[in-house]
Amino acid sequence: MKPNEPAIKIPYGTKDFLPAEARGKRVLEEKLATQFGSWGYEEVVTPTMEYLQTLTTGTGLDLSEQMFVLFDRSNRILALRPEMTIPIARLAATRLREKPLPLRLFYLTNVFRHEEAQAGRQCEFHQAGVELMGASEPSADAEVIGLAISAALAAGLRDFRICLGQVDFINGIMADGGLSEQERQEIKQCLVKRDLVGLERTTKLSGLTNEKQAAICQIPLLSGGREALSAARDLVTNFASRAALDNLEAIFELLHAYGLQQYVSFDLGIIRDFDYYTGMVFEGYTPGLGFPFCGGGRYDRMLASFGLECPATGFAMGIERLLLALNRQGLNQQEGMRDVYVSWQEGKLLEAIAATRRLREDGAVVELSPIAELRAKAEQNQRQRGFRELLYIGE
Amino acid sequence: MKPNEPAIKIPYGTKDFLPAEARGKRVLEEKLATQFGSWGYEEVVTPTMEYLQTLTTGTGLDLSEQMFVLFDRSNRILALRPEMTIPIARLAATRLREKPLPLRLFYLTNVFRHEEAQAGRQCEFHQAGVELMGASEPSADAEVIGLAISAALAAGLRDFRICLGQVDFINGIMADGGLSEQERQEIKQCLVKRDLVGLERTTKLSGLTNEKQAAICQIPLLSGGREALSAARDLVTNFASRAALDNLEAIFELLHAYGLQQYVSFDLGIIRDFDYYTGMVFEGYTPGLGFPFCGGGRYDRMLASFGLECPATGFAMGIERLLLALNRQGLNQQEGMRDVYVSWQEGKLLEAIAATRRLREDGAVVELSPIAELRAKAEQNQRQRGFRELLYIGE
Repeated sequence: MKPNEPAIKIPYGTKDFLPAEARGKRVLEEKLATQFGSWGYEEVVTPTMEYLQTLTTGTGLDLSEQMFVLFDRSNRILALRPEMTIPIARLAATRLREKPLPLRLFYLTNVFRHEEAQAGRQCEFHQAGVELMGASEPSADAEVIGLAISAALAAGLRDFRICLGQVDFINGIMADGGLSEQERQEIKQCLVKRDLVGLERTTKLSGLTNEKQAAICQIPLLSGGREALSAARDLVTNFASRAALDNLEAIFELLHAYGLQQYVSFDLGIIRDFDYYTGMVFEGYTPGLGFPFCGGGRYDRMLASFGLECPATGFAMGIERLLLALNRQGLNQQEGMRDVYVSWQEGKLLEAIAATRRLREDGAVVELSPIAELRAKAEQNQRQRGFRELLYIGE
Repeated sequence: MKPNEPAIKIPYGTKDFLPAEARGKRVLEEKLATQFGSWGYEEVVTPTMEYLQTLTTGTGLDLSEQMFVLFDRSNRILALRPEMTIPIARLAATRLREKPLPLRLFYLTNVFRHEEAQAGRQCEFHQAGVELMGASEPSADAEVIGLAISAALAAGLRDFRICLGQVDFINGIMADGGLSEQERQEIKQCLVKRDLVGLERTTKLSGLTNEKQAAICQIPLLSGGREALSAARDLVTNFASRAALDNLEAIFELLHAYGLQQYVSFDLGIIRDFDYYTGMVFEGYTPGLGFPFCGGGRYDRMLASFGLECPATGFAMGIERLLLALNRQGLNQQEGMRDVYVSWQEGKLLEAIAATRRLREDGAVVELSPIAELRAKAEQNQRQRGFRELLYIGE
């Protein structure tokens, strides 16, 4: 190992974006920001660090195992934000508390989690997302799903699918069955992991009726078009599960009015890995990615943990995942040539600067050679540096 | 203190950008990115965290006192980046090593330092900056200064001044005077702090000749137009100081060709607070800000500490400082009205969605009420939520 080698590595699970990648990221983020804006969402920016206590408030699942923790000068525990819904809930419950509801907010930022790094899964990664707070109606859920679809289309994705579930469908089946909290969590974990064998084993060991056991084991198979909703309806009689299916029907009808129903299917096994969801949940899938490019749902109880009773719904998309999908599907931006390379013969720098200035005033992307060059060298540099035109200032 | 109060505070020295502020930030950053791009600079994005060792490589001054430190899963010391020049130097010396020089890179990102927080000085703040690597000529320095001025103009600043200095002017005076390293550092600290009394005391205690002592005490007074360069020339006979003045003359002549000389003055007392500068240095000042809105200079030795011999020059601007200056000077964007608020009578949601969709397809910024409203309530919401027009879908 050379003496300077450790100094030139970057931490595990982090990434440098070289110019072409950084350009792709900026272009994508601008498209998403424009799309979110045109649906009435306004951006907020929150600190990279929050008190650990803030971040563990309002989430059922404890993310603190996954968080990057550090200390402030008074030895209070801080953490790098692992997601953005909680910081935005904090903001909505504090400085934005007096704003008229519903509140529509979006963000475009980085988040941090200890993960086993792989393509599309890093310890530092970037998310774009929206939160719609103060509306409990299916219209609000249809809006955020519609916006997720429109954002994916604006990003350039063509072949993708939004899979819709509803946590109350599952909760309804599990309720009143005498399940312990641990059994409930075990079943949820099996559903999150799509572990059908584990699901069957866990439900068999529970005190549930045979009918309920069968229903739970059927859940992961309830996916597809509207026929999946009918199959689900045949499976349950409890009020909560039936209301959950009605809710999905209503949302689907509204997505039809948005003209976006062709991107949507149902998957009643979706449960997401945060415990804070209370209604519809969804995930977006596209070929060539082994995990969702976006996900979200309704979370009506989280804001109460910050002292504000307020229903809410929203989603997040992974920027790196979108870029990876676009790349793998051959849909990423072609790297364009830049406009003009200006070079100059010895003694002609002042003229070259004046010419450069005029070109930039006309809106061109212009690079000026810092040193005098012969014309042949200038032509070579123009090509090598990716410029459409050469302006050579000579005799 | 209410039970949830600690959970809703944010860490010392951090900040939430509410929608109007976040919009101002996004608009400003887009203007800067466009300006940097039109001068041929390409964006890079580096990790928020680096190994502490990377960040302490290549800086004379030890910033580690000011850094936010944390640990990775293998207990290696990481730190949140306190600035971006070092990460970009790392990148230039590693993954961009094979790219043809000169390399022109820009960044728009957050950085982190423990600071006494005040308006315009936070522990987490945002910087825009450029680095031009692989060119040692005055043309490269003039380019980055010209770009700093053009970026400030693009940001909307009108009344500002770029103050130019040259560290070799000072180094030349101090060289060969038998100063100890500690005396050198004391003198530099007095110059950074503009502490004239301390400067006189420190030089008196040194073994310098009376002539050199007088020259050093004159340094902070050498500011203004070209006459400051003449006054400086009368003060020194050593080669390095004279070459530094020639360098500033050459840069100034090129800035004239850029048509930007009216924004530039000289201040030979500028030394900047990083020890890595090796040539021209500059700071930008604007009324209503007690500190520079930008600063930079030439740093020809830093890349060598990453194993790449390569001259470099660049600058960083403070996003919060620019926003604060624009705000205090009454130059910030007026908050515009948004386009259309769509509301609907009970039973008309599907029609309202269809109308919303058409408006957005035409490029409008549209908010759709999630609930049915009476027309009077809709009119009230339109005004209160800041929309130019109401589209009410009724009978």
